[in-house]
Amino acid sequence: MGRVTVRRPVVTYARRTSRRRVDALAAEEPLELRVGGRALAVTMRTPGHDVELAHGFLLSEGVIGGLADVAVARFCAGTGPDGANTYNVLDLALADGVAAPEAGVERNFYTTSSCGVCGKAALDAVRLKTRYSPAGDPAEVDVDVLAGLPDALRERQKVFASTGGLHAAGLFTTAGEALVVREDVGRHNAVDKVLGWAVLGDRVPLTGTVLVVSGRASFELVQKAAMAGVPVLAAVSAPSSLAAELAEEQGVTLVGFLRGDSMNVYTGHERVIA
Amino acid sequence: MGRVTVRRPVVTYARRTSRRRVDALAAEEPLELRVGGRALAVTMRTPGHDVELAHGFLLSEGVIGGLADVAVARFCAGTGPDGANTYNVLDLALADGVAAPEAGVERNFYTTSSCGVCGKAALDAVRLKTRYSPAGDPAEVDVDVLAGLPDALRERQKVFASTGGLHAAGLFTTAGEALVVREDVGRHNAVDKVLGWAVLGDRVPLTGTVLVVSGRASFELVQKAAMAGVPVLAAVSAPSSLAAELAEEQGVTLVGFLRGDSMNVYTGHERVIA
Repeated sequence: MGRVTVRRPVVTYARRTSRRRVDALAAEEPLELRVGGRALAVTMRTPGHDVELAHGFLLSEGVIGGLADVAVARFCAGTGPDGANTYNVLDLALADGVAAPEAGVERNFYTTSSCGVCGKAALDAVRLKTRYSPAGDPAEVDVDVLAGLPDALRERQKVFASTGGLHAAGLFTTAGEALVVREDVGRHNAVDKVLGWAVLGDRVPLTGTVLVVSGRASFELVQKAAMAGVPVLAAVSAPSSLAAELAEEQGVTLVGFLRGDSMNVYTGHERVIA
Repeated sequence: MGRVTVRRPVVTYARRTSRRRVDALAAEEPLELRVGGRALAVTMRTPGHDVELAHGFLLSEGVIGGLADVAVARFCAGTGPDGANTYNVLDLALADGVAAPEAGVERNFYTTSSCGVCGKAALDAVRLKTRYSPAGDPAEVDVDVLAGLPDALRERQKVFASTGGLHAAGLFTTAGEALVVREDVGRHNAVDKVLGWAVLGDRVPLTGTVLVVSGRASFELVQKAAMAGVPVLAAVSAPSSLAAELAEEQGVTLVGFLRGDSMNVYTGHERVIA
């Protein structure tokens, strides 16, 4: 597993008795993403699949639309206390003709409309950037298939099993076949790794797929699904208000509280077949 | 509750039968924080307790050390589609002699040491900024008190009960008395609201307290505890590797997997009494 887990001593208490043992913790390290040599973002992530993470992040932000928009990705030199490369700085060169992102992507993102900063501005910003809105995707998925996805995700969470500390995201076909599962200390990073896997495999837009996340569905996760053309986003826990608003506007089917054979469908329920 | 929850229609499936009903979702809206009129950060948060959030954020980033460092906080003008103030832009004026933060706080934060970007740089950055390191705090807390805190937190989660969609953070005395509980779609925001409550009450540094969070313990949450002088951070779920490293360096007692009467103590176990 390398740097995916880190072992540490721990004192475990149960009914007032304690014992010392060694525990495996999910690794967390900063990653700086650069585009054309200029720093764009720093994210705390679990090392591994970083090239995927970078491609998924740039897809989510509308900087790239697919594999052809990236010329090369490379880890920059940079050594840690032990003299080894930290592999914590990743630089992507864009293909000719692809516009570099402005610095401060985040700020631009929420302040495009007349209201300045509000939920509507956030929705507008996604509408301006999306290239593959899933609105017209005729995908359908059976409730029994949906009901089986959380278990299918959990079975493939290798690091969670040892640490209990990672979020997971998985991409499935509407028939329930697993395409890829990724884990990370940050839930947005897990989704970026999944979407970056799809970019690297030249599979974007992701028509006819279901993206499953182990936690809650925020605005940011719906944005990522919409930017990649994913028609169905299913979350084990609750969605936020703005997540549901964005899903409705972008034509994403949003499923929440997916547990056992029950679930809530907040938007796009025409794709869910009982 | 106002904008804390938003009601939406939903289709609920259980054993292949569906029914339509109205569900309450946790509200999510962008908040832009400004210092001296200049934008510093945008965060997606649940509206409410925004002045606390701003004070807690600035304390966590080392911009302020307490109440005396802020002259005034005010919501900026800015209207939504309905003509009403969005209350999504908050500007804080610092007191005379308090240095304004540099733009791009995040980037500076992880790149202060020779390695460029790595876990050690992140630890170094916190060490340079903290004013109230909890290392010398003689606080002690009984395992039975700790075991009761998740239930005490849950009992005070008003919005979670209706939406299932919010993270919570609570501040307790080492005797288990609840001081404040806050909820938010973002777990770092819930903690910032708690710490900002303490700043506004002139209670920082928070010696002799326990900060409880409903989810996992990341580097960022340990940083917030350390910056506020909180000696004990207890999480219901797993910590990350860098969270444990930072807790050890800053003298924070880090408790994870706090469930029922069992828990793991990763660092500072001398404060935990069985």
